[in-house]
This record gives sequence, structure tokens and C-alpha cells, in this order.
Amino acid sequence: MSGSGQHFLQIPGPSQVPQRILGAMGLQVIDHRGPEFQKLGHEVLEGCRFAFKTSGPVLIYPASGTGAWEAAIVNTLSPGDRVLMVETGHFATLWCRMATRLGLEIEFIPGDWRHGVDASEIEARLAEDRAQRFKAVMVVHNETSTGVTSDVAAVRRAIDAAGHPALLMVDTISSLGSIDYRHEAWGVDVTVSCSQKGLMLPPGLGFNAVSEKALAASRANAMRRSYWDWQEMLGPNASGFFPYTPATNLLYGLREALRLLREEGLDNAFARHRRLAAATRAAVTAWGLEILCLDPTQYSPVLTAVLMPDGHDADAFRRVVLERFDMSLGAGLAKLQGRVFRIGHLGACNALTLMGALAGVELGLAAAGVPHRAGGLAAALAVLKEADAEGRAAEREDSSHAA
Amino acid sequence: MSGSGQHFLQIPGPSQVPQRILGAMGLQVIDHRGPEFQKLGHEVLEGCRFAFKTSGPVLIYPASGTGAWEAAIVNTLSPGDRVLMVETGHFATLWCRMATRLGLEIEFIPGDWRHGVDASEIEARLAEDRAQRFKAVMVVHNETSTGVTSDVAAVRRAIDAAGHPALLMVDTISSLGSIDYRHEAWGVDVTVSCSQKGLMLPPGLGFNAVSEKALAASRANAMRRSYWDWQEMLGPNASGFFPYTPATNLLYGLREALRLLREEGLDNAFARHRRLAAATRAAVTAWGLEILCLDPTQYSPVLTAVLMPDGHDADAFRRVVLERFDMSLGAGLAKLQGRVFRIGHLGACNALTLMGALAGVELGLAAAGVPHRAGGLAAALAVLKEADAEGRAAEREDSSHAA
Amino acid sequence: MSGSGQHFLQIPGPSQVPQRILGAMGLQVIDHRGPEFQKLGHEVLEGCRFAFKTSGPVLIYPASGTGAWEAAIVNTLSPGDRVLMVETGHFATLWCRMATRLGLEIEFIPGDWRHGVDASEIEARLAEDRAQRFKAVMVVHNETSTGVTSDVAAVRRAIDAAGHPALLMVDTISSLGSIDYRHEAWGVDVTVSCSQKGLMLPPGLGFNAVSEKALAASRANAMRRSYWDWQEMLGPNASGFFPYTPATNLLYGLREALRLLREEGLDNAFARHRRLAAATRAAVTAWGLEILCLDPTQYSPVLTAVLMPDGHDADAFRRVVLERFDMSLGAGLAKLQGRVFRIGHLGACNALTLMGALAGVELGLAAAGVPHRAGGLAAALAVLKEADAEGRAAEREDSSHAA
Amino acid sequence: MSGSGQHFLQIPGPSQVPQRILGAMGLQVIDHRGPEFQKLGHEVLEGCRFAFKTSGPVLIYPASGTGAWEAAIVNTLSPGDRVLMVETGHFATLWCRMATRLGLEIEFIPGDWRHGVDASEIEARLAEDRAQRFKAVMVVHNETSTGVTSDVAAVRRAIDAAGHPALLMVDTISSLGSIDYRHEAWGVDVTVSCSQKGLMLPPGLGFNAVSEKALAASRANAMRRSYWDWQEMLGPNASGFFPYTPATNLLYGLREALRLLREEGLDNAFARHRRLAAATRAAVTAWGLEILCLDPTQYSPVLTAVLMPDGHDADAFRRVVLERFDMSLGAGLAKLQGRVFRIGHLGACNALTLMGALAGVELGLAAAGVPHRAGGLAAALAVLKEADAEGRAAEREDSSHAA
Repeated sequence: MSGSGQHFLQIPGPSQVPQRILGAMGLQVIDHRGPEFQKLGHEVLEGCRFAFKTSGPVLIYPASGTGAWEAAIVNTLSPGDRVLMVETGHFATLWCRMATRLGLEIEFIPGDWRHGVDASEIEARLAEDRAQRFKAVMVVHNETSTGVTSDVAAVRRAIDAAGHPALLMVDTISSLGSIDYRHEAWGVDVTVSCSQKGLMLPPGLGFNAVSEKALAASRANAMRRSYWDWQEMLGPNASGFFPYTPATNLLYGLREALRLLREEGLDNAFARHRRLAAATRAAVTAWGLEILCLDPTQYSPVLTAVLMPDGHDADAFRRVVLERFDMSLGAGLAKLQGRVFRIGHLGACNALTLMGALAGVELGLAAAGVPHRAGGLAAALAVLKEADAEGRAAEREDSSHAA
Repeated sequence: MSGSGQHFLQIPGPSQVPQRILGAMGLQVIDHRGPEFQKLGHEVLEGCRFAFKTSGPVLIYPASGTGAWEAAIVNTLSPGDRVLMVETGHFATLWCRMATRLGLEIEFIPGDWRHGVDASEIEARLAEDRAQRFKAVMVVHNETSTGVTSDVAAVRRAIDAAGHPALLMVDTISSLGSIDYRHEAWGVDVTVSCSQKGLMLPPGLGFNAVSEKALAASRANAMRRSYWDWQEMLGPNASGFFPYTPATNLLYGLREALRLLREEGLDNAFARHRRLAAATRAAVTAWGLEILCLDPTQYSPVLTAVLMPDGHDADAFRRVVLERFDMSLGAGLAKLQGRVFRIGHLGACNALTLMGALAGVELGLAAAGVPHRAGGLAAALAVLKEADAEGRAAEREDSSHAA
Repeated sequence: MSGSGQHFLQIPGPSQVPQRILGAMGLQVIDHRGPEFQKLGHEVLEGCRFAFKTSGPVLIYPASGTGAWEAAIVNTLSPGDRVLMVETGHFATLWCRMATRLGLEIEFIPGDWRHGVDASEIEARLAEDRAQRFKAVMVVHNETSTGVTSDVAAVRRAIDAAGHPALLMVDTISSLGSIDYRHEAWGVDVTVSCSQKGLMLPPGLGFNAVSEKALAASRANAMRRSYWDWQEMLGPNASGFFPYTPATNLLYGLREALRLLREEGLDNAFARHRRLAAATRAAVTAWGLEILCLDPTQYSPVLTAVLMPDGHDADAFRRVVLERFDMSLGAGLAKLQGRVFRIGHLGACNALTLMGALAGVELGLAAAGVPHRAGGLAAALAVLKEADAEGRAAEREDSSHAA
Repeated sequence: MSGSGQHFLQIPGPSQVPQRILGAMGLQVIDHRGPEFQKLGHEVLEGCRFAFKTSGPVLIYPASGTGAWEAAIVNTLSPGDRVLMVETGHFATLWCRMATRLGLEIEFIPGDWRHGVDASEIEARLAEDRAQRFKAVMVVHNETSTGVTSDVAAVRRAIDAAGHPALLMVDTISSLGSIDYRHEAWGVDVTVSCSQKGLMLPPGLGFNAVSEKALAASRANAMRRSYWDWQEMLGPNASGFFPYTPATNLLYGLREALRLLREEGLDNAFARHRRLAAATRAAVTAWGLEILCLDPTQYSPVLTAVLMPDGHDADAFRRVVLERFDMSLGAGLAKLQGRVFRIGHLGACNALTLMGALAGVELGLAAAGVPHRAGGLAAALAVLKEADAEGRAAEREDSSHAA
């Protein structure tokens, strides 16, 4: 039934790449040591500061987000260092696993994959750590495997309340550009991110935004590194260049993506994601399905993970959706495999695309014989209608004030 | 509220161009007299025969569909010739106006813009024409201004029943590739079409498919012509070339579009359009709005024209939809201006895109304060669900037969 | 020997399309009646005035240059009108043939295809025409088949000297954007052009720039027309729109092409073409081959037609060049077939591309066994070196004056 | 003087990306865990085996070539391991520096940056190493900083002659796809490469081709790693997938690049590079300039490094070339800065592009006032002419044998 129309890419990243960005990436490659590249380099490095809300440096690697994690670790920590992490889901677990492989000693606060970070627990553990053996606290801002967002500012306050000097390192892989995030204001030391989610780019770029304190740590610590070394990168970056050949065409795309974000305005983009997420949850609830995230204050604006009714396989359902309605949904990962499907509503997603996607979910539920109630679309539409009505009211207010 | 997502282009053409076609058009231009072009020429000329369902020649002009109309007229008719046309809507009226300007004498069967061609009326008029002064009958297969499709096979039967030698000329501008059409089987003499609707291309190409009888007429008739002359075109076409510089990059796109159509299969594409149209009408009816087309056997598979409730301006509504939901809907044309909006569901449109578009209509109705009932989306979804269920049943049947 | 590198498209149009233009054409098609299109329409219509050097209207057709010729004729002349044309080569002959087919009576001043227009001959013929039966003088600015450029300003002076009211109509198909041309200052009434030469676009757009006098003629004359009708076009153009669906994606390309031309500056582009042509002629002469154009004041800046030595077939030579060196050269047309090949050096051609092309010619001459002397490349390089030295001297002068 | 034509990117990588590859990269991103990706994954992984001439695994990283170096090291070696390297130039030195930073102990055979690897010296050092403390020999196949190619098969023979178990690791960053290279036949253990040179892609992908022995080493060694870990990658690769989000659009490009290489044939591509290099050296010699590489058996087919005459700055010269002739040449690196410029003739470079590039060099030498003799272009052309004559003779022979 799919036809020759447009594929709906509704996984929680990579997200649909706007044609302006694809077009920008189609320009011919240039000399990465020449004056034209230099302008490009300056623009994207400056633009990243805007996106991460920081006045400090942002490093751009030709790498996946996983690479950016590794960069964060090897630049700031030494083998044997103790770090505090929270098991918010699959990606937090992967980060824990990577940290272990790189020689760190992890205290991993267990979680049920249905809640975000409990800042008070972090405060408690740090308070107990009188010897200040923890060198870093690492959390995932938006856990892509579960659709749960954690309160990073609260984590910062917890660290401060404990009076602990640990670095704060945050994974914003699926939140940057989609959920409000403030590297500098929240006192984050290393922010890890990548290109293919809220930045609306194809995969292939990884990012580290770093604080002064993190830079100092990078000069002091002993983990062997070369490719990921911040100091190597910062020198050439100062004049718009990179120490090794950068992924030029992805940087063309990044330049365009940052322009798109500025045109929309970060706050508008964040509000858009919140609206789409609220509409999605309304649909899920109306269908009588269960949202994985158990704490409404932690619902993710970028994806919604949905539990399958018992006896129904999420992957079989997703296969039906792909084959019959040409839409990709996200799989349940690790222990959630087969039990959960994930609806991405991030990046260049708007209200109408979301409604098409939700229609695809409902059509798929019917086609796959998954028990559900009707009314999901209407519920989602009601949310979008009300949001639009509020928007119009606010605009009227603005213009009457202006008058 | 629109955000940085994808624009929904739901006018009844130009339709959304698939990225594969846009990509194909991005190749470098080549020598239009060289061997590589020749292969391209042969492939697109052959492919057009497939799309028009004819074994005879199809001519491709660098022109809009309007140019293809002019080509049809100046090649077959002489000033003062009498032709029979039917006022199915705005585009039939434009064709009548063009024919008049080119010196033809038109008998224009009046219509209410809410019905298609009445073949019995054509038969009657031709039967009366004992002197056989009518040189041609010209009809519009799918009237893009009204969403009404006419029965071209019935027109052929009417001409035959009247034993009249008039040429049959048909405008398939918005139907080719989207609605079943058979140039040869239906005995059409000249079929007029263009690139930007069911062929999913940008505008810029016009087509004439021609019968032996039309070719004979073109050799006999006296209307002055040069650019549009079929004979000039057919010579070079035989070896894959064109008499003047063709629109090479649009031909690259045409090659890809024809490949896409073959991959889907014409009959599958036609069925897809029928499904999308049925779902759209279900939504419109559920909203309590009126479909312009009054005869259910003539509902268009490619667009649905919707009457606005009295006292509400369709253009104001469309403006709200564009500004708040980033969707373009078709305007009411000529005497329908402001009274009608048109929903395009043609070309590379699939079920999920349509559901997004219908959500946009309902959001727009609410935002513009147009009275309507809820339930449109649910009604459309029910149609798509049932169609999918039938599809699955048919597939099961197929596979059990195969077993 | 060609390898997987870049094809050298050195025919005298279509010319190589810059990637910026191809990229611009890859954007999604939009509603041709919406506000975004309107901005596009205004920008390209205004930009055309800049390119044609006119303050009057320029009409843009979805058509080839041949279509733009037809538009010029059917808008200004009536069947039976007498026009004066000059046989400068194949394209002048084609124009003559078209005019004849459209019912005009042509006085065709014979030519040897190796010279441009003789303005004194035009003056003489007009002076003899006491009854002022000539309604138009039609000349080709740059004859693409021969590489001969005519002096349009001199034709204007000749008409004025004869005190004759005939319209002046000029084909700038291969000169616009490449050779200095001034629609308004030279008192041209209709300028005909197209997209795929100096404008560096793919083929598919035709242009008419028109004077007040031509517009008046179009209101008075009786040739039947519809698609090409200026009055139909000028109405919607005033608000940035078109009477029928325009070739949107080619207009995207046109917008970018006009920006490119403004960035380089028209005068710089003209000077660049003159340099490349001079270098080409130096190579041809050094090879001991003969340039078709016999009058050095009429050498074309955009192409050079070269005579083959007796007993050698130009098409066989061109085939060798294509197969072994992946370069397309222009064929000899009509009576020059096999006797001439044409080197295009227009549009987005620069010094290094030209040198590559000339190397390809010399390699091809050797491979095809065409007798020639060595030294062509060195001669061309000497011309470019000297031009660059002069450029540097002029820049030094400028900066010393500025100091 | 540059105009709006095509930039000549003649640095020794990134090389000009063919439009077919840029077009392929412009497709929409897809689900990296879905069936469509799986087909892509299988095709590129299989294609890499073809390009590296191996039946074993090739790993593809979202990374630069520098990252691929790091991957080679951290997978096979342990801190404190001793390795033998050869100072062939800047990139060998960078690799040495990286190895040092990662904790290896390097024996760095000094070099003058004008010669390749001396296999007999390697044999001697290994023979002395009775304790077999060397764990690896690392060499650069084509030293991009100097234009010197080393004989990897000879290095293999040297290791064997010494009966030494050290791994052989080879950097083919600027040779793969351009110079004959045989991972398996030459017994290489790890081959390091990247996307932006002979593979004609934008930068952003790094490669490791690995032997069974290297895989065994990777299972045994103790260097901490995560992102680069081969074992993590090989599992998912077996079914066409990747352990973390791959750079999908670069993989689209890789698929197209591998198709291009198969179409041309690897041996044809290698021969083309040799021809272009020979022509380049002929030009350089004719100009009276000195080639950096001192051993004619080691001349690089992919780039030619040229020494500037005393008292002339290579970077000033390159700036003139860029500004006046829109061509990028490679800079002298590290101790060669200002003393050398490098002409890239790799990837999608063909004879005519090279001749344009050489013309640009000669124009630049004149413009920058660098003393040189005339005749470079003629000398290069003579080489290409003779190569073409030999090619034609070989083809005649083939066809006479076939007859």
C-alpha cells in the first residue's frame, strides 16, 4: 500500500534531513587549508556555540556520537578514575560500558528504564564521597531508548549542594536543538552531541562542548589519546581550521542547519517539539497503549516510547508499518526489544508530518492486529488545535500591546 | 506554528517531486547531439508510450501543458474549423478561449462546473452535424479546477455511435499517471499532457500523444506553425534526438519518473490515487462540508474540490493554512474563486502524507473559524484501514492460490 | 583513455552548468500562485532586465530558444509582412525558414557563412524601400554555427540612417551574458534569447526583451497566437506571476545564475570571454588550421569554428575526441557538416578549463591523424599570460591611484 | 581573472568529487537498522574488499584517515610495544607522533623526505632484533607530503627474509584506488585508508583492512579501546549493520564510488594515474623545476611535489594561483613549508583536467615572477599523446587478435 510517495522516517534519529541541508551538502569539496574553508570553519564553530548556549569552545569531530563520548572521557579522565553514572536506559548503559572499557571505575546507580535521573540520589552519593574520589558525574539528558528526559540543572544543583568537585558530563545526543539545553548556564563541563538528531543532519559529526574546568582537566589527566585530543584541535580551530581533514560536506550541512535553527529560533524549536510530543502522547493514551516513561515531568519532547500489549511483538508491528505504510519506527533496544516501539518526533518534524506518522501507527496497529481503541488521531489533533489557538491568542496579545 | 519541517504541497499540481527525481535532474547537462543523449532520448520516448498506453508517437516539448494544447490544435486544425467542446470547468474554458484565439469556431456545451462530460449530449450534437463540420471533439479528462473526471471511453463510443469523423482530443494534464488512461484503446487522436502532475516532475515539459489519424490531419491542415510542428519533431525523434535544444535536465527527471512508475506499476498507482481520494471525500463529508463534484461516478482520484460554507472565504482559509501549518492548498479558480478550495492528492502522495494533509485542513478550519464537525480524520482513516484490510485479504488469497 | 574524470562540454551551448545552479534547481517545487513564488518571480523578472540591459519588460517562456523566436514573430508581425534578414549562417537560415512557415515574406540577404551582418547593405535595402514595406529587420548577434559576431549597434544606425520604421529584432541566443549587449541603448525592439548558453542554465527557458514600439506592434498585429502572447504574460508578470504554470525549478536556477552574473559583473564576464576566444584563436592559428570567420573584427568571443584540412572529416575527429578524451565539441551544421568543428568557450568557462579543452583538441588531432603543427597550447598560454600581466598592471595602477 | 567557472582542486586530496557521487549522497537518510540499510551495508562492505584486494574484513569508520590510524594501533598493540617506522615525510612523522602518544616505543628510521622506504634497512633492523621485540612495521605507501611511493611488496619480503613475526601496517590514505595495492597478496596485516583521495568521496570515512593475524592480535592485545574496537564492529557488519550510527550519506557515496571504480576497472584507474603523473613530471622538468622525489622508481602516481627555486616562496606562489586562476595546489608541509608545492592528479582526474591544471601552474609561475622555462605544457602533452598512441596500438592489436 506504500506507493511511490515519501518515506516517513520516524525513528528517534537520524531524523529527516531538510532539502536545504541536503542541497548544501551537495557542493563540491574544497581545500581544507584554504581561505574559503576558513570562513566555513569560523561560521560553524561560532554557530555551535549558539546551539550549545556556551561562550566556550565546541569541538567538532568526524565521528558518530559514540566517538564524541569517547572524546569526552579520554580528554578528562585517567584510568582508574571513579565516575558516577545513572542507568536511565540503553544508551546510559552503553556509556557505562564504554567507560569501563576505557579503564574507569563506574558507580552505576540502577534504574528501571522508565525514569530519569534522580538528582537527590546523586547528591546523596556525592555527599558520601568524602574523599572526593568521584572525578565525574555522567548523565544522559534525553534517553533515546526510553523517551525520558532528565533535569540537568537539578543535577548541577545536586553536585553543588554536595560541594563536590566532580566534572559534570552530559549526553545531549538526542536533545540538542530540540530540548532546551544550556551548557554554560547549567555549569556543564563536557556536553556530548552529534549531528543526526535535532541538528537535522546526516550522521557523521560528533561534538564536545567544554568548560574551562574540563579544559584544565584535559591538560592534567593521563589517558592516552591522539585523534580525540582537545588541545590538538583547539589550536587550528582558533583560525578556523582542523588538525586533520575534516568532513567538509557535513560541515556545509552543519552551516545550513545552524542557519535554519537561527531562522526558527531555538525557543520556537523547543516549543514545537513539546507540542508534537504532547500530541503524540494524547494519541497513545487514546489508543489505550502505555507510555514507557512513568513520570510526566520527564516525558521526552523528541520521542515517545510505547509499550506493546502483552503477547504482541513490537518488531513484528514495526515490520508491518514499514512494509504497508512506508514508515520507519524505532525499535525497542536491549531488554526492551520486542516490547517497545519508539515514535520519533524530532528535528525537521512539524504538525502535519506528525499527524501522518500517527495515522501510520494507527493503520499499523490495525494491520498487525494489535488491540487498541480508536480516537488516537482525534486526541492528537485536539492538542495541536489547542496549541494553535493559544498561539493565536498570544499573537493577538502581542499585536494589541504593540498598538 | 509551521516550524522548519517539510512543506505540504497539496495543490493539484505541481505535485511534490520525489528526491530520486530531483537528484536525477541534478546531473550535468550533456551534448544534445551526442551518443549519451541519444540513449536518453530513446528511453524517454519509449517510456512515454508506456505511460500514455500507446504504440504510436508521443511528442515532448519544452513547454507547459498550455503549450501542449496549442501544439495539439495547430497541428491538426485549420482556422475556421468547427470544434465541439464541453464546459467542464476553468481549464475547459481556457482551452476554448485558446481555440478561439487560434481561429477555431467553438461550439461550447455549457456546464455547471460540477459535472463531467455528458457523452450522450456529444452524441446528439454530432448526430445533428450531418455536414460533418465538426473537425474535433475536445474534452478534459480530469478537470483540475473542479475535481470532476469524465469518461473518455464513453466519449469515444458517442463519436462512433454518431458515425462522426471528428478527431477526439483529450486533456490529461492532471490525470496522466494517476488515473487510468488508454490513448490507443480508447481511440484518442491527440492526448495533451504535462510533467508536473502524475509524472511527479517539475513543470516544463508538455506532451502530445498522437494517432495515425491525427498525423494524417497534421499533414493536411493549414494552420501556420513551426515550434509545435509534429513532422519537424518526429524526424529527429526517430533516432532519439530533437529538432531544437531539448530541456535535457527535465528529460533526466522524466527518465527517472518513468522508472518510478514502472516500479510501482501503473495499475497500482491508479488504485493508490483512488484510495487517497476516497479517504479525502470521507473526511470532507464527515466535516459536514460539500464536495463540488455532484456525480459520485465522476469523483476525481487526483484532487477534491470543497465548497466553503456561505460567508467564509476560501482564500482567507488557505492563507491561514499556509501561514500556520505550512501547507499549500489549491485556490478556487475563476467563478469559483473564494468559494472553493482544492486538496491535491496526486503524484508522489501516499496514505501518511494524505493524513497529514487532512489534519492540516482540519487544523486550518479551526484556526480560520470555519464551521465544521469533528471526525474527518477518523473517517479518512477508516477508509484507508478498510482498503488495507482488503489488500491484505487479496494478498492472502494470492499466496494461498500460489501454494 | 578518458577515465572517470570530468566530461569537458565544449560545445557552444548548452554550456557547463555551475554546481551552485544545479544545487539551486534541486529545491522542491512550490505553489506557483503562492507568496514564495511571487518573490521568486519578481527577482528573476527584475534580474532579466539587468542581463538584457533594459528597463522594459522581459518575458520568460517555458520553451527553447526556438520558441522564443516564434514568440517574437507572432507577437509583432502579420502574415504577409515583409522582413529583412541576413544569411549569416545556419541559425539565421533556420530563423528565415521559421518566418516563412509563419507566413512572412522574407528578403534574405545572402551570405557566405564566414562574415557577419553588413550594416551598409541593410541601410541600402531599407533606403530603397520607399513604401516602407519592411516591417522588421532580423539579425543574429552571434551566429552559433559559424563563430561570427555582428555589430548590432551598427544595424541600429543603418536603420536610423535610412529613416526606416522597421522593427529591429535580434537573436542573442548564444551571446547574452557572454558578449556585450544593450537592448535599450541600441534601440532593439525584440531581443530573443534562451537559458543554456551565457546564462549557464540547462535548456528550457526562452526570453523576449521588448521595446515600447514592439509592444505597440503586438497590440496592432494580427498573427494568431495564444501561448506566446505577450499581453497575456505581462498582466500576471506585473505581480510576479505567470499566466500558466512556469518552469519553477529552471527559475530557481535562473535566480542563481543572475546572482552569479552580478557577482562577477557583466563587463568582467564579457572580458573573460574575449580573453578565452583570443587564446583559442591563437591555438588554432598555431596548429596551422583555419578559422571559419574571415573578419577579425567579427570573431566570436563565445565559440571558434575551425575548418578541417581537406580530406579530413570533422565528425570523425569529434568522435575520436569524445571517445578518447571525454570532450564534446560542436559539429559543423548544415552545409558545414563534416567540414567544421566548433570549440565552445562560453558560460562558466575559465582559463584552465579552456586550456584543458585545447589540449583535448590537440590530442584529438594527433589521435585522428589530422595534420597540424605543434605549438597551439603554448600560443594560447601566451595570450592568457599577457592578459593576466595586463590585468596585474591595471590593478597596480588602480591601487596606486587609490593611494 | 578567475571568472565564474570551475575551481580546479589540485591538492593531493580531498580530490574533486564526481557529480554522480555528490548526487548519490543527496538522497534522504534512512533507518540504519532497517532492511534498506542492510543492503547498502552489504554492498559497501563487499565493495571495499574489491578495492583493497582482500577476501578478509574491511572496517569502515565515521572518521578521518587519522582516526583509521588510531584504530589500527589501538586494536593491535599494547602500550610499551616497540614498532619500526620509516621517516618518509610529514605523514609518516605524524603517524610516529600518534604512536608515541598512544604509548608505543618507536624506532624511527630517519629519512630525507625525498626517498621512500628502504626495504633492506628494514630487513637489517629486524634481523638485529633477535628478541623479536618489534611488534609491528608501519609504512606509508604513498607519502602525500612528498610524492614518494614505497614498495610495500618489498617490505613484506624484507620482513619474511628476516623471519620476523612483526605485523605489517600500511597507510594507503592517498594511494587506495589510485596506485596498485594488494592487501592480501602482499601479506599486509592492517591497511589504513580514507574516503577523500582515490575513492573520490568527501572526507569523513576511515578504513581498516585486516588480516587474520591482525585479528588475532586484536583479541590478545591490551590497549584500551571502545569506538575503534574491531570486534564490536565485525559482529554487526556480518549482517550489514554497524554498532553505532554510521555516516549513512557518505556510505551512499561510497557505494557509488565503488561502482565507478568497477566500471573503469582498477587496473585502468592505476594506469591513468601513472600517465597523468608522467605528464606532470615532464612539465615540471621542462619548466626547469626540481621534483622533490629523488628516485624515479618511487615517483608517485597521485601527486608531484615540486621544489621552488631559491628565494621564492611556495605559499606566495600558491596564493597567486588561487586568486588569479582559481586553482588550489597543495602546500609544503612542516619542514617543506614554503619550499615545495604539490600538484594533485588523483581520483577523478583525467588528461584534460590535468592539462588545465598544468596550464594554471605555468600561468601562476609567470604571474608570481618565479623563474622557469617555457615548454612545460608541450612536454606534458607529448607524454599524453604517446600514451594515447600506445593505447590505440594496443587496441588495434587486441581487435586483430580477436578477429
